Amino acid sequence: MPEGQPLVVPNDGLTTRQRRNRPLVMVHTGDGKGKSTAAFGLALRGWNQGWDIGVFQFVKSAKWRLGEQTAFEKLPPGNGTVEWHKMGSGWSWSRKAGSEEDHAADAAEGWAEIKRRIAAEQHDLYLLDEFTYPINWGWVDIDDVVETLAHRPGHQHVVITGRRADPKLVEIADLVTEMTKVKHPMDAGQKGQKGIEW
Amino acid sequence: MPEGQPLVVPNDGLTTRQRRNRPLVMVHTGDGKGKSTAAFGLALRGWNQGWDIGVFQFVKSAKWRLGEQTAFEKLPPGNGTVEWHKMGSGWSWSRKAGSEEDHAADAAEGWAEIKRRIAAEQHDLYLLDEFTYPINWGWVDIDDVVETLAHRPGHQHVVITGRRADPKLVEIADLVTEMTKVKHPMDAGQKGQKGIEW
Repeated sequence: MPEGQPLVVPNDGLTTRQRRNRPLVMVHTGDGKGKSTAAFGLALRGWNQGWDIGVFQFVKSAKWRLGEQTAFEKLPPGNGTVEWHKMGSGWSWSRKAGSEEDHAADAAEGWAEIKRRIAAEQHDLYLLDEFTYPINWGWVDIDDVVETLAHRPGHQHVVITGRRADPKLVEIADLVTEMTKVKHPMDAGQKGQKGIEW
Repeated sequence: MPEGQPLVVPNDGLTTRQRRNRPLVMVHTGDGKGKSTAAFGLALRGWNQGWDIGVFQFVKSAKWRLGEQTAFEKLPPGNGTVEWHKMGSGWSWSRKAGSEEDHAADAAEGWAEIKRRIAAEQHDLYLLDEFTYPINWGWVDIDDVVETLAHRPGHQHVVITGRRADPKLVEIADLVTEMTKVKHPMDAGQKGQKGIEW
């Protein structure tokens, strides 16, 4: 439901239009479902607006290839574009084969590539899926992430998903949503199923 | 992040596969962003699985036509199908022109149509977007909704979005996620922007 009028009109010298179009850092965190799904839904909106979108998946899993990826690849040309990158062997610029032991180095390398792209203003939207984990595991330096995002040039949106977002990340984000689990089928002994979980 | 093993294996006489494939009632509620976006992201996954999906938008707004709708319409045939219905003049089976005063009747009529479809097992996934509002406004009877969903035939998933989900709805749902606003650009005087809000 649209939110209506802002509560506060800041004295920042910007017009409403300039303020409206300010690029955002968005964080979807919490233990509930919907963090990544909402981010991919956002990418779908961006695609419709003609955006150049970079998706970067940071945690390898059995559900590595999401339905979203297949769907995005089937969207016809003429609107936006979506590039899909995976940590490990999926990173096209990585020389490593992506063994388990190399994940920390791959995550750092992946983040370095994202930094290069941000500096080059390569994408309109960066979807850093499950990026909180390599940060929390110490594989990617949170201060570097915060510094890079806070001072990124041009007009680049960033959405980051994952549990336990670092307070420093929350601090510099424009929009933070916490997805809280109220009830989950796992609690009743139900495992994930296709179409719902991937 | 995949959730791993269920905490409890219930003594319900079902195999893991049967339990896994049980159809779900899902609710995305709370004051934060991402309720509808995550539901549309779920629809995208379902589309990729070949599902027949019915989207029913229950609250008219300036952002009536979402980027998701345009994107879904551009997806090629061969996977799932997505039908898009809107309350009011958008309801194809409604004779009304959809004036403001008719909204309550339109919502009731819309719900009656959804009931018919559920009885006929017409869709694999029903996306009832912002359906909590007509329920909370008393336009649609919560007991009828709960009764219909709890005893729906066949294998039909349902996802309902909107703030303040009725406790009776939460009670019968399999999966409930609350999207909580931690931080929103509106708080800093920023209005919604295309690609992000619609």
